[in-house]
Amino acid sequence: MQTTVSLGIDIGGTNIAFGIIDKSGNCLANGSLPTTAYNTPQDFVQDLYKTVKKELDNLDVQLVGIGVGAPNGNYFNGTIENAANLSWKGTIPMVELLTKQFNVPAFITNDAKAAAIGEMVYGGAKGMKDFVVITLGTGLGSGIVVNGKLVYGHDGLAGEVGHTLVCGGDRYCNCGRRGCLETYASATGIKRTACELLALENTPSTLRDIPYTEISAKKVYDAAQKGDPIALEAFRITGEQLGKALANLVAIISPEAIFLQGGVANAGEWLFKTTQEQMEANMLYIFKQKIKILRSSLPTNAAIYGASALVWTELNN
Amino acid sequence: MQTTVSLGIDIGGTNIAFGIIDKSGNCLANGSLPTTAYNTPQDFVQDLYKTVKKELDNLDVQLVGIGVGAPNGNYFNGTIENAANLSWKGTIPMVELLTKQFNVPAFITNDAKAAAIGEMVYGGAKGMKDFVVITLGTGLGSGIVVNGKLVYGHDGLAGEVGHTLVCGGDRYCNCGRRGCLETYASATGIKRTACELLALENTPSTLRDIPYTEISAKKVYDAAQKGDPIALEAFRITGEQLGKALANLVAIISPEAIFLQGGVANAGEWLFKTTQEQMEANMLYIFKQKIKILRSSLPTNAAIYGASALVWTELNN
Repeated sequence: MQTTVSLGIDIGGTNIAFGIIDKSGNCLANGSLPTTAYNTPQDFVQDLYKTVKKELDNLDVQLVGIGVGAPNGNYFNGTIENAANLSWKGTIPMVELLTKQFNVPAFITNDAKAAAIGEMVYGGAKGMKDFVVITLGTGLGSGIVVNGKLVYGHDGLAGEVGHTLVCGGDRYCNCGRRGCLETYASATGIKRTACELLALENTPSTLRDIPYTEISAKKVYDAAQKGDPIALEAFRITGEQLGKALANLVAIISPEAIFLQGGVANAGEWLFKTTQEQMEANMLYIFKQKIKILRSSLPTNAAIYGASALVWTELNN
Repeated sequence: MQTTVSLGIDIGGTNIAFGIIDKSGNCLANGSLPTTAYNTPQDFVQDLYKTVKKELDNLDVQLVGIGVGAPNGNYFNGTIENAANLSWKGTIPMVELLTKQFNVPAFITNDAKAAAIGEMVYGGAKGMKDFVVITLGTGLGSGIVVNGKLVYGHDGLAGEVGHTLVCGGDRYCNCGRRGCLETYASATGIKRTACELLALENTPSTLRDIPYTEISAKKVYDAAQKGDPIALEAFRITGEQLGKALANLVAIISPEAIFLQGGVANAGEWLFKTTQEQMEANMLYIFKQKIKILRSSLPTNAAIYGASALVWTELNN
């Protein structure tokens, strides 16, 4: 009997990554296509089919479904809706396009929700019924699982932890408001915090010689590695804001664990330690010392794992 | 065929109310017993049995289950654990006691979670899959329903919205921390806000002639009815704090509606209007104008409805 596999697709503004993954989480083949090379999503789907078909034939496996993680991916409608970082405008019926071309069921969700499904099916949340995945990238995404199921809310739009407001927050957010958590706890947030500290403090810092546009979370990280006090303080403040927000989140849904995914989550113990400390310090006593903050155990291309995992959970329903 | 009914029990520090309720939400009989009259929970259960048995025989109905709403009611263990306002100390195996005495299945949960179940089975949340019930009494309780199921979290303790921290909050809370939402948005919170305003403002107010111990949410309400500016401002601040907290809650779980239950929820349009306005003002744009804030449609003894409703949802599982 042929091994059954799912195709996981992670749609980003620059690249579209895909992986052919079996039920145990083995990635049998993967690749990527340049998003901007395709004028229409139809062109992309056709080209993807050709590429994937070859791989499937080589592997001699049976494709049973396709999962897509995409910015503004709408699970209920099977569409990508007005994604700011894609050149394909309006509402794209991605599930319909994929189903027609591949003749297997397809499912779509947004990137952070796919990340949570990936963690549940292949990663550290295996066997957990209640947990949260926080993705720390340009912004802060979140996928919340309650009673073993992803929380979509009544309109499919739940999980916007990045757009809860932090106390005293005054930074402008892309959403049009001020003080959203993601303006503090994200790669962009770390950069903004570091730059604010440069103006606030008189401490010497190597970051003082880099223009604003060139400062990145990675550069703050590199400076922190060398003991730069501004960079270290930027990470501490980031962990403080994140920890406080997580304390409130815990009071609402009491998850067993909170997983941090994404580039920033690799920023070592500075971020984890302060986040955990501040979560504990601000949390109701009944939750203290019970909620784990864990690093995601998925590979760096977690997004294609999450997208492919969606297939297994959906076909099981 | 006999009508099937469930017995709903609401355990409070002073009284234990019960109701015999059918599947459609008709209360066929109800009564109450004085909590402090019973030295042990066993004594209470025996007396309750005698009282309820008579009613059941008179009504000629079939009891299929018992639901209990209680402070610190633990759904997973079937117990009441260290309830501060009960004279029965330690862990009380209430479900076991009731099952043995009545010979039908019994279920227990905390009062706010029971309120949410009541709203779903008999009240305004009928047919909704995602909603929140906020009970505004001495404290602020919450019952959260996601995907048609109550959110218990990994340890049964989810739904502590009353113990999320508000921005700049400095009021001491019974939980040992400062700034919990329930120190602002509750009957006690309204009283505290009114008293703080008496010190802050110079505006005349009838509340100035009442000692702190005698000021209650009801007296603030009565003063507001007569146009007292301090009382009106106290309700506005209460709505502001609640609305801001609900905006963050919506971003996390995106409920279809938020129901307000309990005495304070009857405080008329002042509270509802400001709560809705502040929730809208602080909410991410994708949720605006979509989330309803509604008054509970359950009778004033909502707690026994909620407790009895637990039976129908549990027997359906």
